[in-house]
Amino acid sequence: MSTSRMALQPGGCLTIIGLGPGDARYLTPAARAALDAATDLIGYFPYVERVPERPGLKRHASDNRVELDRSRHALELAAAGARVAVVSGGDPGVFAMAAAVFEAMDTGPDHWRALPVAVEPGITAMLAAAARAGAPLGGDFCAISLSDNLKPWALVAKRLDAALGADFAIALYNPVSKARPHQLDDAFAIARTHRAPDTPVLLARAVGRAEESLRIVPLGDVRGAMADMSTLVLIGASTTRMIPKADGGAYLYTPRFHKGLETQPA
Amino acid sequence: MSTSRMALQPGGCLTIIGLGPGDARYLTPAARAALDAATDLIGYFPYVERVPERPGLKRHASDNRVELDRSRHALELAAAGARVAVVSGGDPGVFAMAAAVFEAMDTGPDHWRALPVAVEPGITAMLAAAARAGAPLGGDFCAISLSDNLKPWALVAKRLDAALGADFAIALYNPVSKARPHQLDDAFAIARTHRAPDTPVLLARAVGRAEESLRIVPLGDVRGAMADMSTLVLIGASTTRMIPKADGGAYLYTPRFHKGLETQPA
Repeated sequence: MSTSRMALQPGGCLTIIGLGPGDARYLTPAARAALDAATDLIGYFPYVERVPERPGLKRHASDNRVELDRSRHALELAAAGARVAVVSGGDPGVFAMAAAVFEAMDTGPDHWRALPVAVEPGITAMLAAAARAGAPLGGDFCAISLSDNLKPWALVAKRLDAALGADFAIALYNPVSKARPHQLDDAFAIARTHRAPDTPVLLARAVGRAEESLRIVPLGDVRGAMADMSTLVLIGASTTRMIPKADGGAYLYTPRFHKGLETQPA
Repeated sequence: MSTSRMALQPGGCLTIIGLGPGDARYLTPAARAALDAATDLIGYFPYVERVPERPGLKRHASDNRVELDRSRHALELAAAGARVAVVSGGDPGVFAMAAAVFEAMDTGPDHWRALPVAVEPGITAMLAAAARAGAPLGGDFCAISLSDNLKPWALVAKRLDAALGADFAIALYNPVSKARPHQLDDAFAIARTHRAPDTPVLLARAVGRAEESLRIVPLGDVRGAMADMSTLVLIGASTTRMIPKADGGAYLYTPRFHKGLETQPA
């Protein structure tokens, strides 16, 4: 008999935890406490590997692209009495595991809805990348996943067009994958129809990890090949500015003040 | 002679720190370390009050709406050799102090650009509110400040219209103030031209603080008077769903999957 058909066993609970951008210095005390209380750890294997082993903690690492199966497994374990921690990098609510767990609950057996389920937020990639660069998200902004695994590219393109037309700064998650080598270039092409060639684009790779690197490239020169799966891409608003640093780098920021679109370059 | 005209004194630095949503359980270890290293603490007084007093830490609390003056003061102190911490609630890069500090640097004396300036990210209000409710930001989303202190309302309205038309979930910061009692109702009116009346709207007040309260109201019934300055307002996408909980509340989530706009209700 599957545990999903059993009544709830006492003591079970599920917490979906954001590990932040790769370094324990960004893990909140609330997230750490939730990890410390868990009996079962579930997630994509690079995130599970970030959590130190300890007695009493069972680790269930899985491959990517199985988010819904992983979520059902987590809910089944919790229903059977386990204290389950589902881990995501960054924030679990931003293009990560939280939506998958609630989708599994929504389409699963009724008794899953009686489980204590909580989400512990984390520092998501765009906030970490923006902090490293300065304050490029200082005005209104959007977050868009470029992956078309779960939505048609036409919708991604429409969202890009709408966000660019209304002069949002834009953070692009999942900018490229082996199966989608051309979409980031397509996104830059859409951006060039709205923004001047000198608009700064931030390419922030592996922020918070040892191999971290930041690059600012003008929109006219940026290419999809400059990013990989670990890169957060941030396209500036028309008002986003660079401040040259003494050491040759630059700060990037979007002023809080905006005159309105009539006065912006086409 | 003003310190802003002096050369840099050795040892000075400035870190702009996100305190997260109100409770020390959300303060990252990196942010705490930056607070511990500071000689001078600068910020809007409720944020300065959150940081415990200790010997060797001078506190410079100021009123709201003086962000640029406060930023110049912080840069002057750092240039004079102080280790300055500028504090914001949530994340300092999201409608908070980081953009103001870089704006002050951009328009200030050249030697300010040689100061070591860093930003420590924090859990911003929309991530904290979304985590408490479930996963309403599980798809593409926008963050918009409704304040028209620094941009014309026509731009705010255009951004709302663009984001709603492309079916983003939308987080509204600074939804109301005494000087702007009608703008949130205006924003809801724009939303009603795009979204069905049963679209869930999350009103998350004082998340992470003792007086925290969450409310989910259908777009057709929501009113600006239901929010105050401490409220994060989140308007769901057309796909955002509610899962009734056993205790009478509900989880809110936006599925990762989206068929595209052709299939969405007008």
